[in-house]
Amino acid sequence: MSMPAYTPLTDALVAELRRIVGDAYVVFGDEDRLEPYSHDEIPDRHYAHMPEAVVRPQTAEQIAAIMRLANREHFPVTPRGAGSGLSGGAVPIHGGVVLLCDRMNRILEIDPANMVVVVEPGVVTAEINERLGDTGLFYAGYPMSLETCSIGGNVAENAGGGKAVKYGVTSRYVLGLEIVTPTGEIIELGGKLLKDVTGYSMIQLMLGSEGTLGIFTKIVLKLIPRPKTSVDLLCLFGSIDEAIAAVPMIMVRSGITPTAIEFMDCASMQASCRYLNESLDYGRAGAMLLITVDGADEGQVEREYEALGEQCMAAGAVEVYVADNHTTSERVWNIRRNIAEAFSVISPHQANEDLVVPIAAIPALVKGMGELSAKYGIAIPSYGHAGDGNIHTRLVKNPDWSLQQWNETLPKVLDELYRLTASLGGRISGEHGIGHKRKKHMPLFVSAEYIDMLRAVKRALDPNGVLNPGKIFDLP
Amino acid sequence: MSMPAYTPLTDALVAELRRIVGDAYVVFGDEDRLEPYSHDEIPDRHYAHMPEAVVRPQTAEQIAAIMRLANREHFPVTPRGAGSGLSGGAVPIHGGVVLLCDRMNRILEIDPANMVVVVEPGVVTAEINERLGDTGLFYAGYPMSLETCSIGGNVAENAGGGKAVKYGVTSRYVLGLEIVTPTGEIIELGGKLLKDVTGYSMIQLMLGSEGTLGIFTKIVLKLIPRPKTSVDLLCLFGSIDEAIAAVPMIMVRSGITPTAIEFMDCASMQASCRYLNESLDYGRAGAMLLITVDGADEGQVEREYEALGEQCMAAGAVEVYVADNHTTSERVWNIRRNIAEAFSVISPHQANEDLVVPIAAIPALVKGMGELSAKYGIAIPSYGHAGDGNIHTRLVKNPDWSLQQWNETLPKVLDELYRLTASLGGRISGEHGIGHKRKKHMPLFVSAEYIDMLRAVKRALDPNGVLNPGKIFDLP
Repeated sequence: MSMPAYTPLTDALVAELRRIVGDAYVVFGDEDRLEPYSHDEIPDRHYAHMPEAVVRPQTAEQIAAIMRLANREHFPVTPRGAGSGLSGGAVPIHGGVVLLCDRMNRILEIDPANMVVVVEPGVVTAEINERLGDTGLFYAGYPMSLETCSIGGNVAENAGGGKAVKYGVTSRYVLGLEIVTPTGEIIELGGKLLKDVTGYSMIQLMLGSEGTLGIFTKIVLKLIPRPKTSVDLLCLFGSIDEAIAAVPMIMVRSGITPTAIEFMDCASMQASCRYLNESLDYGRAGAMLLITVDGADEGQVEREYEALGEQCMAAGAVEVYVADNHTTSERVWNIRRNIAEAFSVISPHQANEDLVVPIAAIPALVKGMGELSAKYGIAIPSYGHAGDGNIHTRLVKNPDWSLQQWNETLPKVLDELYRLTASLGGRISGEHGIGHKRKKHMPLFVSAEYIDMLRAVKRALDPNGVLNPGKIFDLP
Repeated sequence: MSMPAYTPLTDALVAELRRIVGDAYVVFGDEDRLEPYSHDEIPDRHYAHMPEAVVRPQTAEQIAAIMRLANREHFPVTPRGAGSGLSGGAVPIHGGVVLLCDRMNRILEIDPANMVVVVEPGVVTAEINERLGDTGLFYAGYPMSLETCSIGGNVAENAGGGKAVKYGVTSRYVLGLEIVTPTGEIIELGGKLLKDVTGYSMIQLMLGSEGTLGIFTKIVLKLIPRPKTSVDLLCLFGSIDEAIAAVPMIMVRSGITPTAIEFMDCASMQASCRYLNESLDYGRAGAMLLITVDGADEGQVEREYEALGEQCMAAGAVEVYVADNHTTSERVWNIRRNIAEAFSVISPHQANEDLVVPIAAIPALVKGMGELSAKYGIAIPSYGHAGDGNIHTRLVKNPDWSLQQWNETLPKVLDELYRLTASLGGRISGEHGIGHKRKKHMPLFVSAEYIDMLRAVKRALDPNGVLNPGKIFDLP
């Protein structure tokens, strides 16, 4: 790995940072208080790296001043939202400053007449819809961590989530951004506009740039009419293969675009239920599809979920339950949302994967995962956003294995898994991002010329390489 | 304007071009055959510029070879689809080569299992849905020129169109691209993937880049279930102000997301009807909203269009007609689609505008246009995509004005119109692009720092400035 020579933070530099944001908002020289900012939600601490300082600005002007200082003095700055990432995007792998957005957590404007909301990056995603009250509008982003993650992080990672089949991912809803550039300029992109081709799509370039091309200080989000009714189908299948085989069929043949098609295998359901002390009894199920339909019209939603339920039965579902009240629905979605967390607490020795393949290739990928599990003797539980072809898995260390055995085996399994994914036309990340966790695997999925193109864009916007360096690719 | 010193095309260079694409596919030294490629659909020939040669490649490899030659010898290359643009994006303002995509017009693959179609850039947009036959799927892009424009141009301009309220613009449907970079490399971006965060959103950066960052040689388009039923409402209003005032109300209060909310004022309707020799008799109408609702469920579509019709009546509509059969629907949409063409043939002395404002600001913009019309004594007919806040207008020379009077007045009217648009939080282009037509007006709408950011990206990907130079901004 290339390691640019950055300037260590001196007392003098820290004093300048304190002048910019105020004494109380710089953490320096206190390992205990810095440690929480050395990692995100990746359980494996191998990916952690301590920051030299944590700085908590409150305005775009303060962030611009920090970036100008970073360019002048050449220290790295790593922006951080809620730290709920799963690829190390917010981890300061070259030290320097972690720029924490927690104080920029205001909902600046709810504008129902223009169907937008303007927020700061530190707003917790779930708060947006809570605050929209009786406007009849809602923000359609629904990452599984919505109760803890921040909207700035959603933009930085172009977060997907549970409702992307119908509503798309974060990028569909970002109409405007105020950003601080890597060199410390404040620039407005877009606005309260549903369409805008005045220049390149710089907003979309920022979406998913993992905090390497700009720091978002204001976000204009598009709102849409809130669906009046929503129903979940819990479709139980005897095996994961049967459940997964049903997905492309439902997507294509039904002619219906469901809001969500999530899936969980037996191990994932059980892990999450144990973690939540939840007792949904689906004893016979080898796997579950969680299908949501929503809309303005109760009759239509009913016809759609009935049609989808019949499709699932025809595809071999053992049973289909209808969750048409909020309590049951929340109970099941809570299980789905907590799978990652449930696996995380089992052991730090695990790999969280975020594979994405064309929807027709989902069965082949899941079948391959089963074969790898059998071949190497480790569990490869899977769950995820089946309707998007986005399959998560957690490879967790076998309790009776030595650490050495695990460390030798894991790379082999992942290598086979990634090669299979690539051979299916898939990619290494559907929504979690590359960060530093996945960057070494990029060449298996994309060409060297493509990575060079990313590098050229990065150098153009961050000539001194001070904003979140070492993520997605290295700069030689 | 900065004018980089490009190399004129010599006989030797033309011979190299002929070797790359074949003798028959290079036009050189023949003014009559070159002239059609000197302009797009902007009626004002002031924006035209002759190419030195037109080259018609058939493969990505040929395009890559042309771009490598252009970099080595330093001549400009301007890609061109069907030439139906309205901002001069395909006009070779520095001469050199027009790279015509007309021979790359194959639908390469219809893949219903993955809900995608893979096409070459020269495919006419309307052909895509014709070829999808009974797959039950459709491509939702619907630019007004869909019967003549090509999909490559749609991607280059991030074309909007008539169904963007519900279905979004072109960018929502491009899952993958094969591009030739400005320096002549062939790179694959994305694939048949509904989600993908493996690196920056280079696909989205290409969308709307107006042929300045890459040439698209393969396009993977997302398909969605074809709505089973579709109904149009023709809502007649006494005045344009009343029609336009209804739009934000419908968008926000109804809780319904219509497929389209188009509007036409009286002058626009009449011009198009005359052009088409069409005789829809809406004598009393000062303006029309054309509202489309579609869906999988007839009952729901009926309930939605009834609700919207009632909203229009409550908002002061004189009459609401329902067009629930294909013939009537096509008749009305044909009028809407041909407005631009109808105005184009009246006089070459006109300006076509593509303003976009926040939806709540539409009434203020249209009111301001009326005031400008009265102040300067010229007609400012308006039409467009009201549901997106995207208002088109044509300022056509008064027949009894001298050309001098027109040339002196037009810039003043446009200046006031642009200032009004900017003051409403709007932008100069919602879907037509900047090209060279609008670039001098950019500073009114965006900051110098933003334009510098675009320049930095352009320089990073096209260091020699040979791909479609002089568009969107100048490189000093």
